[in-house]
Amino acid sequence: MYEQVRALIEREKILDPKRAVLVGVSGGPDSLAMMDILNRMGFQLVVAHLNHGLRSEAEADARDVQRMAEARGLPIIVEKEDVEGYASMHGLAIEEAARIVRYQFLFRQAAENNAQAVVVGHTADDQVETVVMHLLRGCGLAGLKGMLVRALPNNWSRDIPLVRPILACWREDVLVYCKQHKLQPLLDSSNLDVTYFRNRLRHELIPYLEEYNPAIKQILWRMSQVLTGDHQVLESVIEKVWKICVISQGSGYVILDTNPFKKHPIGVQRGLFRKAINLLRPGLRDVDFNCIERAMAFLLSPTQTGQIDLIAGLCLFIENGQLILADWEADLPLRDWPQVVDEKPAILEIPGKTGLSDDWLIITELVSDLDSARIQAMENDDPFQAWISMDCVQKPFQVRSRQPGDRIQPLGMDGHSVKLSEYMINVKIPRRAREGWPLVTTGEEIVWAPGIALSHPYRLTASTRQAIFIQLSRIGNG
Amino acid sequence: MYEQVRALIEREKILDPKRAVLVGVSGGPDSLAMMDILNRMGFQLVVAHLNHGLRSEAEADARDVQRMAEARGLPIIVEKEDVEGYASMHGLAIEEAARIVRYQFLFRQAAENNAQAVVVGHTADDQVETVVMHLLRGCGLAGLKGMLVRALPNNWSRDIPLVRPILACWREDVLVYCKQHKLQPLLDSSNLDVTYFRNRLRHELIPYLEEYNPAIKQILWRMSQVLTGDHQVLESVIEKVWKICVISQGSGYVILDTNPFKKHPIGVQRGLFRKAINLLRPGLRDVDFNCIERAMAFLLSPTQTGQIDLIAGLCLFIENGQLILADWEADLPLRDWPQVVDEKPAILEIPGKTGLSDDWLIITELVSDLDSARIQAMENDDPFQAWISMDCVQKPFQVRSRQPGDRIQPLGMDGHSVKLSEYMINVKIPRRAREGWPLVTTGEEIVWAPGIALSHPYRLTASTRQAIFIQLSRIGNG
Repeated sequence: MYEQVRALIEREKILDPKRAVLVGVSGGPDSLAMMDILNRMGFQLVVAHLNHGLRSEAEADARDVQRMAEARGLPIIVEKEDVEGYASMHGLAIEEAARIVRYQFLFRQAAENNAQAVVVGHTADDQVETVVMHLLRGCGLAGLKGMLVRALPNNWSRDIPLVRPILACWREDVLVYCKQHKLQPLLDSSNLDVTYFRNRLRHELIPYLEEYNPAIKQILWRMSQVLTGDHQVLESVIEKVWKICVISQGSGYVILDTNPFKKHPIGVQRGLFRKAINLLRPGLRDVDFNCIERAMAFLLSPTQTGQIDLIAGLCLFIENGQLILADWEADLPLRDWPQVVDEKPAILEIPGKTGLSDDWLIITELVSDLDSARIQAMENDDPFQAWISMDCVQKPFQVRSRQPGDRIQPLGMDGHSVKLSEYMINVKIPRRAREGWPLVTTGEEIVWAPGIALSHPYRLTASTRQAIFIQLSRIGNG
Repeated sequence: MYEQVRALIEREKILDPKRAVLVGVSGGPDSLAMMDILNRMGFQLVVAHLNHGLRSEAEADARDVQRMAEARGLPIIVEKEDVEGYASMHGLAIEEAARIVRYQFLFRQAAENNAQAVVVGHTADDQVETVVMHLLRGCGLAGLKGMLVRALPNNWSRDIPLVRPILACWREDVLVYCKQHKLQPLLDSSNLDVTYFRNRLRHELIPYLEEYNPAIKQILWRMSQVLTGDHQVLESVIEKVWKICVISQGSGYVILDTNPFKKHPIGVQRGLFRKAINLLRPGLRDVDFNCIERAMAFLLSPTQTGQIDLIAGLCLFIENGQLILADWEADLPLRDWPQVVDEKPAILEIPGKTGLSDDWLIITELVSDLDSARIQAMENDDPFQAWISMDCVQKPFQVRSRQPGDRIQPLGMDGHSVKLSEYMINVKIPRRAREGWPLVTTGEEIVWAPGIALSHPYRLTASTRQAIFIQLSRIGNG
């Protein structure tokens, strides 16, 4: 086992002999044998032991681990945490809470001790159990590949890796090593408690599977090895495509270009969605099949509202060929949509230019002495341009954003008035753009909502004599 | 279920309504419901039923299926095969023999009836069972992804696909469909026989796994869906790299360029080996982890003999930076190595040219009246050129390939003689090139083995007066 671990560390270059290593030691055979081997190999170890406060022997165990470390002249940190309290506070299963509290402790200590890595004693048996657990819960390649010998788990630390040097060693060989080197591992009675899911796998399910194939553990371990390689290839493809597709990403949002996105095979598309979710929700563990398939279906045919709630407070929507995954509250870039910056209404310059923001302005021209022939010849198909009759206008034109109670009588609806807020949804104005959308008003009335509707009373008729030509323009686009 | 199948067929465009479809019908609920649905959809069906000759009811079943097809006005082919005989003849399990005989029958009939596809009634339950079976036997992504809705299984046919239109339907829904449409499926008593591995999975293992997660079937089915996409991405990466790496491929061999091969990640390298093996042994089902890992290890550090037996009569070796996978008996291209074609020795022309094959010849020049100054000034670093002293030569020079018992006294080894066959291994002449390697001889003695050694007695010394300059040349390279 010593040789196997040494060869792995050298071949994969997973640990630097010149820098400290934080080694998590429960005192059980796995972590004890691992500590012994790394110590013999000459690594600078800092031992860390967490008392989970769950078992009566826990205090004694902590003292025993301390003694084992000190016998080797190794520095040791022992801490105690209230795992049960953490579990009930966060509504977690005890196993899950213990896992979180333990890793938080190990990575905190690694940072404080300037260690190059956190090292833990997962064995090949643990790997098989992990794979089976993922299989039962449902997973893709990322779950089936199991644990990595060296991983940078970004939910614990940005720069300290988690290293598992005995991941290729079977528990059987660990016990032989302990015996040969006269190590006296602690017994963890909770390892036999089959109310814990993992223990049930270990003591019941895996032995049952061995009746179907006695080599099942070797088979699943090898499968995880092969799939680790396959997963790496898939991830590198997704990474390349991601770089092509990503338009921008910021606090709480990711914007991707749908065109290159859709050109790639379904496996890559799923991977891009997984990556986007993972970027915004790095700790999220249960990004399941349904979530990704809903995203895929939405991409193929967006819903009527133009958006869906995807997962964990993230919504997905499409705007102008851009696929956006964002927090509900994300501060998305709004340059693509006309927006009024000032809270107070601005006077509309007639004729002239009225700036709305750094990006948008309204331009007006005044046209007098119209006659019905001229009016009939006028054409306009651009919803961001309009002819507005000035004949009946009493009050000055203003530009403002919407207010509660705003209504409009869209042209062609025979003067029937509708709620502006609902009408904006009907004409698919993106939710995040609605609040600041510019409106041209006179008094309390909306005259023109650019891109949405001209108000019926302000349309040109055969008798109109004075009018303005108005257009909303992007600065720089003329 | 009808709607689900119709939607799948239309979305994936898996069947052309204008061309005949060969549908395999056992008479069980799955194939019966499928036949009914495809018939309602208006496909041109040709029904095929194989009597496996395994059960007492088989004859009656065949008549029933015939009746069901004829009731719908569908043409039907019934054949009987001796599966037990086939199994014992080929040393196969009954299940495996039945599978082979059945597919051979279906694809043969599809070809004879000019059908666009063979259609079979695998359900979502079958998919889950297949995935579990692969998991238990050990597999990679290709096995975990399960069966495909549309596959071109090159061991049955080069151009007729195998289609599974009800692969997303659960057996439960199939039974509901049969009831609703008053179909009367046959009962296959062997489906309950748990001595068959698949039945054991269906009736024992999967229900057991449901105790761990009642949704296990849905989970494994979805996993197969996701992995199908991932597998497709991986295969397309491997396909691209393959095109870069492949130097040549022919009957019984594949030659790859090791340099680009080694530059790719391990997952791609494994895939290239799998692809190479699959090309040479298309029917081979058990290309396991060990086989691929041995190939990977060999690539990293080739064995002393320079080759390994890989699997199923294929050997793997490296020559001149080329990675070769070949049958032992493969007719590999030998143009890269000098070879003598004639079995009889040829007289060496001095001076002149002696052809060895279409690709190689030996050129000699005679040089007389040498003196020590001229000899000292001579230089030659090319192992395929030599200066040979003619002063003591009694018999004419010949060119031939090696013979049992050949020995040589390599220059610089003080006249110590070695076995030519062993010396060829030491200087890394590729195994397949050794047999026909050209040797220049006089009488029984080897004078020069081009690229290997000049014989010590024939070296130039200060007293040499007459010599030849000899070179082995590739025709076309001057």
